[in-house]
Amino acid sequence: MEGKAKTGISPTRAEDFPQWFQSVVRDAEVAELDHVRGAMVIRPWGWGIWELMQRALDDGIKATGASNAYFPLFIPLSYLEEEAKHVEGFAKEMAVVTHHRLEKGPDGALHPAAELPEPLIVRPTSETIIGRSFAKWINSYRDLPLMINQWCNIVRWELRPRVLLRTTEFLWQEGHTAHASEQEALEETRRMLEVYRQFAESALAIPVIPGEKPESERFPGAESSLTIEAMMQDGKALQSGTSHFLGQNFSRSMDMEFTDENGERKLAYTTSWGLSTRMMGAVVMTHADDNGLRVPPRVAPGQVKIVPITRDDPAPVLEAANSLRAELADATWSGESVRADVDTRERKPAEKRWEWIRKGAPVVIELGGRDIEGDVITVTRRDDPGLARNQIPRDGAAEAVTGVLEEIQTGYYEEAHRRLRERTRDDITDVEAFREFFSGEETESGGFVRAPWSEDPATEETMAEFGVTVRCIPFDAELPSDPRCVITGGAARVMAIFAKAY
Amino acid sequence: MEGKAKTGISPTRAEDFPQWFQSVVRDAEVAELDHVRGAMVIRPWGWGIWELMQRALDDGIKATGASNAYFPLFIPLSYLEEEAKHVEGFAKEMAVVTHHRLEKGPDGALHPAAELPEPLIVRPTSETIIGRSFAKWINSYRDLPLMINQWCNIVRWELRPRVLLRTTEFLWQEGHTAHASEQEALEETRRMLEVYRQFAESALAIPVIPGEKPESERFPGAESSLTIEAMMQDGKALQSGTSHFLGQNFSRSMDMEFTDENGERKLAYTTSWGLSTRMMGAVVMTHADDNGLRVPPRVAPGQVKIVPITRDDPAPVLEAANSLRAELADATWSGESVRADVDTRERKPAEKRWEWIRKGAPVVIELGGRDIEGDVITVTRRDDPGLARNQIPRDGAAEAVTGVLEEIQTGYYEEAHRRLRERTRDDITDVEAFREFFSGEETESGGFVRAPWSEDPATEETMAEFGVTVRCIPFDAELPSDPRCVITGGAARVMAIFAKAY
Repeated sequence: MEGKAKTGISPTRAEDFPQWFQSVVRDAEVAELDHVRGAMVIRPWGWGIWELMQRALDDGIKATGASNAYFPLFIPLSYLEEEAKHVEGFAKEMAVVTHHRLEKGPDGALHPAAELPEPLIVRPTSETIIGRSFAKWINSYRDLPLMINQWCNIVRWELRPRVLLRTTEFLWQEGHTAHASEQEALEETRRMLEVYRQFAESALAIPVIPGEKPESERFPGAESSLTIEAMMQDGKALQSGTSHFLGQNFSRSMDMEFTDENGERKLAYTTSWGLSTRMMGAVVMTHADDNGLRVPPRVAPGQVKIVPITRDDPAPVLEAANSLRAELADATWSGESVRADVDTRERKPAEKRWEWIRKGAPVVIELGGRDIEGDVITVTRRDDPGLARNQIPRDGAAEAVTGVLEEIQTGYYEEAHRRLRERTRDDITDVEAFREFFSGEETESGGFVRAPWSEDPATEETMAEFGVTVRCIPFDAELPSDPRCVITGGAARVMAIFAKAY
Repeated sequence: MEGKAKTGISPTRAEDFPQWFQSVVRDAEVAELDHVRGAMVIRPWGWGIWELMQRALDDGIKATGASNAYFPLFIPLSYLEEEAKHVEGFAKEMAVVTHHRLEKGPDGALHPAAELPEPLIVRPTSETIIGRSFAKWINSYRDLPLMINQWCNIVRWELRPRVLLRTTEFLWQEGHTAHASEQEALEETRRMLEVYRQFAESALAIPVIPGEKPESERFPGAESSLTIEAMMQDGKALQSGTSHFLGQNFSRSMDMEFTDENGERKLAYTTSWGLSTRMMGAVVMTHADDNGLRVPPRVAPGQVKIVPITRDDPAPVLEAANSLRAELADATWSGESVRADVDTRERKPAEKRWEWIRKGAPVVIELGGRDIEGDVITVTRRDDPGLARNQIPRDGAAEAVTGVLEEIQTGYYEEAHRRLRERTRDDITDVEAFREFFSGEETESGGFVRAPWSEDPATEETMAEFGVTVRCIPFDAELPSDPRCVITGGAARVMAIFAKAY
C-alpha cells in the first residue's frame, strides 16, 4: 500500500478537521484561494461538480414554474439607502466601485480615475435591483405570481475567508418571487425550501433538517427565514439553503403595486431564496474521508475512470478500454448516460488510480492485458474504505457498474443519515448537560441538540459562550407536554436544533 | 388585421434601423438597459435564448477537450501593471473597487469606507488572472495542452451604451489555453474560430466570414486575432467571436514555464477566445422583422406556443391542447425534445398570438372548438411574412411541426446567406467607387466590400472618413494577379473585407 501512504490526506480528519478540509479541497483539485484575498479559483473537477449541481437544482427550480433571467452586478448606493433595514444587515461587507478609469500618474503607475457621481456596490444579494424591475413589470393581478431566478456571482467582503465556505466572491442562484396574497408567498417560501431539501438529499446525498430560523438569524428585511441544516462529519451544522418570506417590506419601499380583480391597487408579497457554492463545502465535509474526496455519483463529473495498463503493445488495451467506455456511455443511470472516460495521460497507472480516488470518482476501473485475457475488469469502489480491487466479469460490466453507482449514491446518503440520527441528541434537558456536550473539543464529540427552547433572547448569550446557535426550529418536531427550556429551565415555546456551525 | 397594426414594431427597419433594433429588443422582452448606466437586465425570454446558446456553444467547446472552470471577478491592479501592452488597450474603461465597506457618515448617508490597500479591477477579460493560475499548474510538458473555459460576467465601462451590443456589464465565455509549441497554439486559435463559425451558422443561422483582423484591430497583447464577421440587415458588420494567438507575450510576463521532453525549461504559447451576449444582438439584427423578433428554432426557448381558444366550456379545449403539447414534447427535433407549451394565461387569444409573434416563437398553434371538431390545428409560421393561419390535420401534427422547425431554421440561414452574398461587393476597385458605396445613408444600400488591400496604415485614415474599417482578411479569398489596393491604387498584399461596423 505504498501508493496509499503517498496519497492520503494530511492531516487526517481526526488529527485536524479544519486543516483536513483545506487539504481535501486542494488535493482533490476542487478549488483554491488565490489572486485576491478571499477570492476563489474553482478548478475543472470542482467546476464539473458545480455544473451538475446547477443542472439538478435548476431543473427543480424550473419545475415550480420559475424562469431564469439576469440582473446587473452593480447596485447604485441610493438603492441600498432606501432599504434601511436590509442594508444594516450587510453594511459591513460590500465591495464599492468608485471610479471607472485607470490612468497613469506622474509616478508612471496606474491610478483610479474618473470618479463616479454615485458609488456602485457589487451585489451582496439582489433584492433591491430585482424588486425595482418587478415593480416596473407588474401592473395587474394577471402578472402574478412573478417567479424569477438568476445564477450569478455575489460579493460579500469576508474578514476571515475560507475556501468554499466563506469567500469574498461566491456563486449562487437567487430566486425572487412576487405574489398577490400573503398565503401564496408563504407557500412559495415553503415550496422552495422543499426543492432545496430534495436537491440536497437526492442529488448530494446530504440529509438535512428543514425548519425556521430564529428571529436573530433572519435575513435582513425578512419576516421569516427558512433553512435546511446539514451536519458535517465534525458534528457542526452547515446552513445549506435558505428561503425567505419578505412580506411587504420590500414591495412597500419599491412601490411594487398591482391592480387586483376588483380594480384596487395593492402591494405584492415577495420571497427570496438562495443556495450557493458553499454547498460544495458541505459535499466535502459530509462525504470526504482520509483518502480524499468522495463525490456522490449524481454530481460526479466523471463517474467511472478507466485506467488502461499498457506494457508492450498498448493498442489492444486501449481498444478494450474504449469499447468499455462506449458501452458505459450507452448505459443509463439516474436518467443520464454514464459519465465514463479513459485516462490516457502520460502517467503511471497507479498514480492515475490514486488521483481519481483522491478526487472521489465513484468507480475506477483498471484494465490491462491480464484482465482482457481473463475477460474481467478490475474495479475499485470509492465507497469501500479498504479500496479493494475487485475483478468482475467483463460481460455485463455496464449493468454491474450502474448498480454500483446506485449503491454508492444510496450508501453515502445512508452513512450521512446515520450520523445525523446518531449525533442528534434528544436526551439533553438542562443547561449543565448542554454545557458539557458542547464543551468537548473532539471531532467525534460534536453534534446537534434537539430540545425545547424558550425563544428568550437572553439565552443566546449563554449559547454564545460555547459558540452555539439555534440552527432552526424544525418543522417536524413536537413539543413534549409541559416543555422546559434547555437553557433557562423555564417554559419553552418551541423545539429547536442547537449546534456549533460553519 | 387590427391586431397586426397594434403589435408591429415602431419604427420599422426602413424608417430607422437603430431605433427599430431597440424597439424589438424591448417589445420582444429580450433585455433592457436599467438601474445603472449601461447595465442590462436580460429578461426570461432573452435569457432562455442565451441559455440555449450557451448549451450549444459549450458542447462545441467541450468537444475540443477544453474544461470549464471559474476564476475571480476582481483583478489586483498590480497584475495589470505587469502587462503594460495589454492594459494600454483597456486602460480607459474599467470599474475600480477602492473600498470594502459602507458606513453612515455624520450626514446620516452611506459612504464608502475601509479603503483597500490596493485597488481591484472588475475583470475586463481574464488573461492576467488565468495566466497566473496556469503558471502555477503547469510544470511539465505532460501538463500541456491546458485548455480552460469560463462562463462569466465582464465589465468594460462604455461611454455610449447600447442594449446587447455595448453594455458596461456583459456575459461571455472566455477560453484560455497553453501549449508546448507555437504550431499547436496556432492550430488551437484556428480550431476555436471554427467552433464559433459552426455555432453561429448552425445554431444561430447566421452566416459569417472567418478571417484575420488587421494589426490595428488586434486584441491588446495578441500576435494575431481571428474573427468571424456577420452582416446585419442594414449591411453593417458585427464582430461575432474572436480567437487570439498570444504567442509568448503573456507566458513571458507570467513565467509560464514547463520542462520539455529533454528536461529543458521553456515558455508556453497561449491563446484566448471569446463570444458574448453581444451575439444576441446579432440574432436580432439578422433575423428580426417589422413584426418583432424571429428566433432560430435551435435557440428558441419556446419553439411551439399553443394558444387555446376557449369559449363556453374550456375543459375539452385545454385537454386537446395538453395532449398536443405532450405529443410534441415526445417528438424530437435536432436531437432534443420539442419545446412546446400551452399558454393558459388570462389574456385574449389574439393578444397571446401576437405576443409570441413579436417574441419570435417559430410556431404558434391556435386550437379551439372548431379545430377540434374538424380534426385540425391552426398554425402560424413565424417565417411567413404574411403570418397566414394554416389549418393542418391534427393527425401527424408532431411530424409536420418538426418539419416546419427544420424549414424555418434552414430558411433563416438561407435568407441571411443570400443577403451576405448579394451585398458583398467584389466590383469596387477604386477609391471613388469605394467612397460612393459607403456614403449612402439608406439601410438597403450598405454592405461589405471585398477588395485587395495594401495593408498600408495610412489607408485607415481614408476609411475613417466614412466610418469604415477592415473587418478581416478572409481565409478563403485569393488575390487576383497584379492586385491593386482599393484605396491607394498601389500594390495590394491581401484581400480584405471593408465595412461599417457595430
